[in-house]
Amino acid sequence: MTYFNNISNINYEGSNSTNPYAFKFYNPEEKVGGKTMEEQLKFSVAYWHTFTEDLSDPFGAGTALRPWDKYDGMDRAKARVDAAFELFEKLNVPYFAFHDVDIAPEGSNLRESNQNIDTIVAMIKDYMKDSKTKLLWNTVNNFTHPRFVHGAGSSNNADVFAYAAAKVKKGLEVGKELGAENYVFWGGREGYETLLNTDMKRELDHLGRFFHMAVDYAREIGFDAQFLIEPKPKEPTTHQYDFDVASGYAFLQRYGLQDDFKFNIEANHATLAGHTFEHELRYARVNNILGSVDANQGHPLLGWDTDEFPTDLYGTTLAMYEILKNGGLGSGGLNFDAKVRRGSFTPEDLVHAHIAGMDSFAVGLKVAQRLIDDKVLDRFIEERYSSFDTGIGKAVEDGTADFHKLEEHALGLENIQNQSGRLEQIKATINQYLLKEYAGA
Amino acid sequence: MTYFNNISNINYEGSNSTNPYAFKFYNPEEKVGGKTMEEQLKFSVAYWHTFTEDLSDPFGAGTALRPWDKYDGMDRAKARVDAAFELFEKLNVPYFAFHDVDIAPEGSNLRESNQNIDTIVAMIKDYMKDSKTKLLWNTVNNFTHPRFVHGAGSSNNADVFAYAAAKVKKGLEVGKELGAENYVFWGGREGYETLLNTDMKRELDHLGRFFHMAVDYAREIGFDAQFLIEPKPKEPTTHQYDFDVASGYAFLQRYGLQDDFKFNIEANHATLAGHTFEHELRYARVNNILGSVDANQGHPLLGWDTDEFPTDLYGTTLAMYEILKNGGLGSGGLNFDAKVRRGSFTPEDLVHAHIAGMDSFAVGLKVAQRLIDDKVLDRFIEERYSSFDTGIGKAVEDGTADFHKLEEHALGLENIQNQSGRLEQIKATINQYLLKEYAGA
Amino acid sequence: MTYFNNISNINYEGSNSTNPYAFKFYNPEEKVGGKTMEEQLKFSVAYWHTFTEDLSDPFGAGTALRPWDKYDGMDRAKARVDAAFELFEKLNVPYFAFHDVDIAPEGSNLRESNQNIDTIVAMIKDYMKDSKTKLLWNTVNNFTHPRFVHGAGSSNNADVFAYAAAKVKKGLEVGKELGAENYVFWGGREGYETLLNTDMKRELDHLGRFFHMAVDYAREIGFDAQFLIEPKPKEPTTHQYDFDVASGYAFLQRYGLQDDFKFNIEANHATLAGHTFEHELRYARVNNILGSVDANQGHPLLGWDTDEFPTDLYGTTLAMYEILKNGGLGSGGLNFDAKVRRGSFTPEDLVHAHIAGMDSFAVGLKVAQRLIDDKVLDRFIEERYSSFDTGIGKAVEDGTADFHKLEEHALGLENIQNQSGRLEQIKATINQYLLKEYAGA
Amino acid sequence: MTYFNNISNINYEGSNSTNPYAFKFYNPEEKVGGKTMEEQLKFSVAYWHTFTEDLSDPFGAGTALRPWDKYDGMDRAKARVDAAFELFEKLNVPYFAFHDVDIAPEGSNLRESNQNIDTIVAMIKDYMKDSKTKLLWNTVNNFTHPRFVHGAGSSNNADVFAYAAAKVKKGLEVGKELGAENYVFWGGREGYETLLNTDMKRELDHLGRFFHMAVDYAREIGFDAQFLIEPKPKEPTTHQYDFDVASGYAFLQRYGLQDDFKFNIEANHATLAGHTFEHELRYARVNNILGSVDANQGHPLLGWDTDEFPTDLYGTTLAMYEILKNGGLGSGGLNFDAKVRRGSFTPEDLVHAHIAGMDSFAVGLKVAQRLIDDKVLDRFIEERYSSFDTGIGKAVEDGTADFHKLEEHALGLENIQNQSGRLEQIKATINQYLLKEYAGA
Repeated sequence: MTYFNNISNINYEGSNSTNPYAFKFYNPEEKVGGKTMEEQLKFSVAYWHTFTEDLSDPFGAGTALRPWDKYDGMDRAKARVDAAFELFEKLNVPYFAFHDVDIAPEGSNLRESNQNIDTIVAMIKDYMKDSKTKLLWNTVNNFTHPRFVHGAGSSNNADVFAYAAAKVKKGLEVGKELGAENYVFWGGREGYETLLNTDMKRELDHLGRFFHMAVDYAREIGFDAQFLIEPKPKEPTTHQYDFDVASGYAFLQRYGLQDDFKFNIEANHATLAGHTFEHELRYARVNNILGSVDANQGHPLLGWDTDEFPTDLYGTTLAMYEILKNGGLGSGGLNFDAKVRRGSFTPEDLVHAHIAGMDSFAVGLKVAQRLIDDKVLDRFIEERYSSFDTGIGKAVEDGTADFHKLEEHALGLENIQNQSGRLEQIKATINQYLLKEYAGA
Repeated sequence: MTYFNNISNINYEGSNSTNPYAFKFYNPEEKVGGKTMEEQLKFSVAYWHTFTEDLSDPFGAGTALRPWDKYDGMDRAKARVDAAFELFEKLNVPYFAFHDVDIAPEGSNLRESNQNIDTIVAMIKDYMKDSKTKLLWNTVNNFTHPRFVHGAGSSNNADVFAYAAAKVKKGLEVGKELGAENYVFWGGREGYETLLNTDMKRELDHLGRFFHMAVDYAREIGFDAQFLIEPKPKEPTTHQYDFDVASGYAFLQRYGLQDDFKFNIEANHATLAGHTFEHELRYARVNNILGSVDANQGHPLLGWDTDEFPTDLYGTTLAMYEILKNGGLGSGGLNFDAKVRRGSFTPEDLVHAHIAGMDSFAVGLKVAQRLIDDKVLDRFIEERYSSFDTGIGKAVEDGTADFHKLEEHALGLENIQNQSGRLEQIKATINQYLLKEYAGA
Repeated sequence: MTYFNNISNINYEGSNSTNPYAFKFYNPEEKVGGKTMEEQLKFSVAYWHTFTEDLSDPFGAGTALRPWDKYDGMDRAKARVDAAFELFEKLNVPYFAFHDVDIAPEGSNLRESNQNIDTIVAMIKDYMKDSKTKLLWNTVNNFTHPRFVHGAGSSNNADVFAYAAAKVKKGLEVGKELGAENYVFWGGREGYETLLNTDMKRELDHLGRFFHMAVDYAREIGFDAQFLIEPKPKEPTTHQYDFDVASGYAFLQRYGLQDDFKFNIEANHATLAGHTFEHELRYARVNNILGSVDANQGHPLLGWDTDEFPTDLYGTTLAMYEILKNGGLGSGGLNFDAKVRRGSFTPEDLVHAHIAGMDSFAVGLKVAQRLIDDKVLDRFIEERYSSFDTGIGKAVEDGTADFHKLEEHALGLENIQNQSGRLEQIKATINQYLLKEYAGA
Repeated sequence: MTYFNNISNINYEGSNSTNPYAFKFYNPEEKVGGKTMEEQLKFSVAYWHTFTEDLSDPFGAGTALRPWDKYDGMDRAKARVDAAFELFEKLNVPYFAFHDVDIAPEGSNLRESNQNIDTIVAMIKDYMKDSKTKLLWNTVNNFTHPRFVHGAGSSNNADVFAYAAAKVKKGLEVGKELGAENYVFWGGREGYETLLNTDMKRELDHLGRFFHMAVDYAREIGFDAQFLIEPKPKEPTTHQYDFDVASGYAFLQRYGLQDDFKFNIEANHATLAGHTFEHELRYARVNNILGSVDANQGHPLLGWDTDEFPTDLYGTTLAMYEILKNGGLGSGGLNFDAKVRRGSFTPEDLVHAHIAGMDSFAVGLKVAQRLIDDKVLDRFIEERYSSFDTGIGKAVEDGTADFHKLEEHALGLENIQNQSGRLEQIKATINQYLLKEYAGA
């Protein structure tokens, strides 16, 4: 059985090809910055958007044409695994990621749900033996089912808290079984709809306990994946506790969890929080908490999570710049938490969308690496802050200055000279780098 | 000399008065929740908006008619002090607040600026001897002058860092001299215009040093005011480091400053960050870092800081609810960081605007106190979270549960029952409380 | 069979009652401004939100507990009619509104769908014989079904255009059958996801034709309901053609439809377009195109249509102010295009939510009428523009001025005096009116 | 005297040059789409941002270092003219644009202001004799001076209306004198701060009269420039009447002005209104009201007009796509209504910024022309709407269909087939075109 039989021979030397399913810029074996593109980019397919998603929206029913959805129940779940590994191979992606409910339907109770999971996990494990594609991370969906209407780890209902914990326990076991390199927490309902009926202190304390118990259990079973929190500001709840990386970092420090968690940063979640994607990456990087990336993009004029495939080359360039500066993502990768538009409902669109995303990050990688190699930004920045390399600036940095010394210095200043920040010239230079990378210059 | 001579006899029994300058709801001596309104509300006039502001905007020149502005230089500065204490007395406000440059013009160098400050501070101190009005907080303006174009404590220029530190040193001395109850840091340019030319790590480290030095110097001179950080997300810079309370709290913990700072929370800064005002207050409250409040409001459809006088009674009620639940603001108060509209350019408008703000918070106080007294929200919330008072929920809270116990509990659950959050009914109830407070019911 | 059996005796003299299902402010028979509240407010229940909606969101399954949903297919449709007329009677509402698919499930083809509609319409008509509740408006849902993925009247697919037209034809017939006072067009997918694949000119021309054909057919069958366009800027499509009232008005004039259509203005659609609700009402009013109102509210910090029940008394007051100034809504009414929150999932919440909305508009009506009676705003505005009542201003208005005369006048001006706009005082006054309405003052 | 003496030899063959002031992509003589780049792009320098602007912001004083600002009053105005024509020549731009107050300071009354204008206009006219640079458009600033606090043509004050009219009268005379190709109206204060004190009907009627008088006077003096309205949604006022192109078009039609005006569309004004730049261009194009362009860009996360120089190549490509499809801009051009950042305060930054903008539009032009030449989007769109070329679709377009025929067609449909919109593939293709344009492919 093949689900993508009309889509054969996806081509990696696309620029010379008329094959519509061709990469124009991504070549997994091409070396950039001393590693292959595949190693630098560590692409991951998101199971939910690609194999489970039906493309419904709040005003419309699903439009997705997915041949594997002709089956029902566990048969459908199995057909999705077949489709998944077929596509992983065709796209030649090194990673994938999933929530528990993406791969197996919930049963009538927890035990039955876990049995369904076990069945599919075994099937996936079997596929993985012969596949290069590894599990970047897994997670559990503690937000879709009505029981999570008031949250999971932050629910006011202790039964729901327990149920959520049991699901995460299973998730950790599944992650260990499949060799997941990370384990992600996205708190879809960990927040509030209104403060008017919410005990924020109690909810945050419960969440702190929840995370500590998760850390303890992972240690107990020897699951050494990197734990990741994925911030999002305000959807589906009105306000989510992990609003952005900074608020998540405040929480981790407050509850003594900062050594056990890093962040999984999603582009569209960043913009919904009022930050650029590169801001969230930079903030995480300088605080040593950059873990992994959900590679997508939002629409700047829309106020909800559009989860578009990433095609903005400025976005991919600046993201790769931060990732390269971070020395890569460690155990993390670039997971396409992205869905095709509701109007792009054919299986072919899934292929085109992934090619679009992978090509865009390939371009971003190459432009970013060239910017770093040529020290385009670094040289300017180093010079810009050089007043802190000597004299009073150095005294500030090495801790020998105090307000007396600084006032004395200030009283002696005749005229303060600032240098232009040169933003317009820098932006023009980035455009030149973007275009010249492919001009053979 | 009197600047508000047409505005005499501001009346505190307004509801029976035809005096246009009458309070309808604020009565400083009325007891609410066991204290006088004046004690509960601790209103403060913002010197800059009321005496210095000219009501210019990016597309228009100043429109403000301010009789004290007929003078120049230090004479104008002195006239403003006269006007200020006249208005403080007429409004009968217990507090005021200022930046250094609000009260005295900058000289041609730091020494001269400090002399100007000394002259005016002496004059203010003299006025304060005979006035009930105290200094809620002072601060220094390290953002308007061109030297701060690239920031102050986060500037790339060590000379600017030193100059900023010298200004804060003076500010701390002024605060001590005038008995300020708090000292505020608003980082108008502590952030970045673009990451492309910014060393975020170095800037944050410098800021951390800056704050430590400020703490050290305040201790050295025996100035025991509460230090406050005032978050704002993105104006004037594209991104400010103290984006919101959570990001500021992450910073304080990261740099070991969490015991020395609380937060000065501004309503309009909250909304620009994508939070409700009450969210920021609640978050600060449950983390024990709620210090003081800049009482204003923004326009929900405008993307910049409009600094309107607070008149939304929902906003004032929910704010006072959090403040009362916090046991008051401690050394903090309600500072009107608010300006009249550009079209409200007469001195009379200043009076009307303050009356509007004070009346609105008086209503908010009374409604909030009644909501608390009647346990309207508390009773619902306590019942809502009661599953954590016993059994598995209690085990979570007292730390005796782990994932094994929780899974065992979850496996035994037949059916999980959630209760409605009842938001619509709660909102209707709040409307009833708002209206009945003044219906004598 | 009764679906709201626990909810008996909804009370209209609520303020003296302990019945939880009591109106505190709405009294249908109370006279305000010379008419009863029921006549002034013309409340309508939205069938889709109250009887069909399951409270799912993009990240969660439906939570709604609706006893009538235990049935399937046409049995469910009939049970919903029973539930609807039971609630209409309990709430004593004079109107309701629906889309075709709310009342009857789609069949396997158009003919079958129409048969389903006929069955339910007959049942509704039968109920209406003994009910005071009339049909404010009906419409057809041309956006949910996958066939409308690329639009309906603006679809690129002529088959879809025809299908949409056939549905509207049926809708007009149903409207006539049930005596609908208006017919609404909400163009859920009439817009574009991206300009990159869109022929905007052709789509707009098709829409123009579509509306002309609808007008022609209504005339043909003698259906004289007021036609209404309901603007919404950007959900579900990225950009909808009827972005706001102004863009809809431009379209109507461009295609010669301005005499046949008015607007159905929704509060939350207004705010998503960057306008206040009262702006859209005012703009429609002064252009004589205010038709009806979808009475709800959005969350100012969320970027999607939250469709909350209206409880903000400022919003209801300012809306009623415009409506009263318009001399009422003519054939229009206040339709609660509002849904209970996902966490408010019980039938009781439906009752509480409607009471909350009806009470809020009752308060708004009374405060607005008092503002009008006392000429609070009118007196100020009349004086403010009085320079156009005489002299050069009058010459402008009566068309006798030209640039020569105006220049001559301007050259003779010594000093131009403007008056303060007094916004702060006006806002304080509105608060006083809001509170005193219920203080017996 | 030279103001840009360190900036000599701006180079048009930049890619082979080490000159920092070099164009990399713009070459005025290069042919694209049958015309030279200079003819296609018609760049214009904005006098206000480049020669008058001091780079102050609401929280900071001006930082701009402008050697011509060492003079005062009329001497400064003259020095600015010298600087302007020096820069026009160095940049080799074919156009410029100004407001009255940009070129000459206001006097103590209208007569004196006009005299100042006359002096500078004579000087400019003299310069223009020997310059290739022509006047794209002029306008008057009816928003900065305090007299316009409540608007100009929409002011409640008839004296202000007259004053504004007199200024426009002079502006039309100046435009004629200098051969302006267009005349622009940007209604900086034509809107309202609050509806609470506003008579919207009267204000709109006054504006309608104002525009008619302007048309009449231009005809009287034989000034045949294209009149342009420049929409902006909400800054400086809370709500501006010309919110976007659609609302302006509604107004023009309502007041019978649609044949006398087109639109000057600004990128950042589009995004503040919730539209993409290309949306506004497309909407104007299909309604035949696209007049000219203010070429800048905003920051997607900031809620105010940032007026950045355009460097986003997606933005410039899609804008040029619409402009080319429009057959060019007629008498319009690409005016850089853009300012350097406050941190880019040197004269060199002005040069770099214009080069950045001109290069970005040069790239956009070439990519757009290639997309058109290759029919990349056209071919897809033509096929996509082809169902309207025959059969029932054609009947819709030629007006022979009605609801009966359409229903008959719909009843006969067995299954409706839609085609994918292919957005992801289209976006990937645009990236390929962007990169290959400079790859010599």
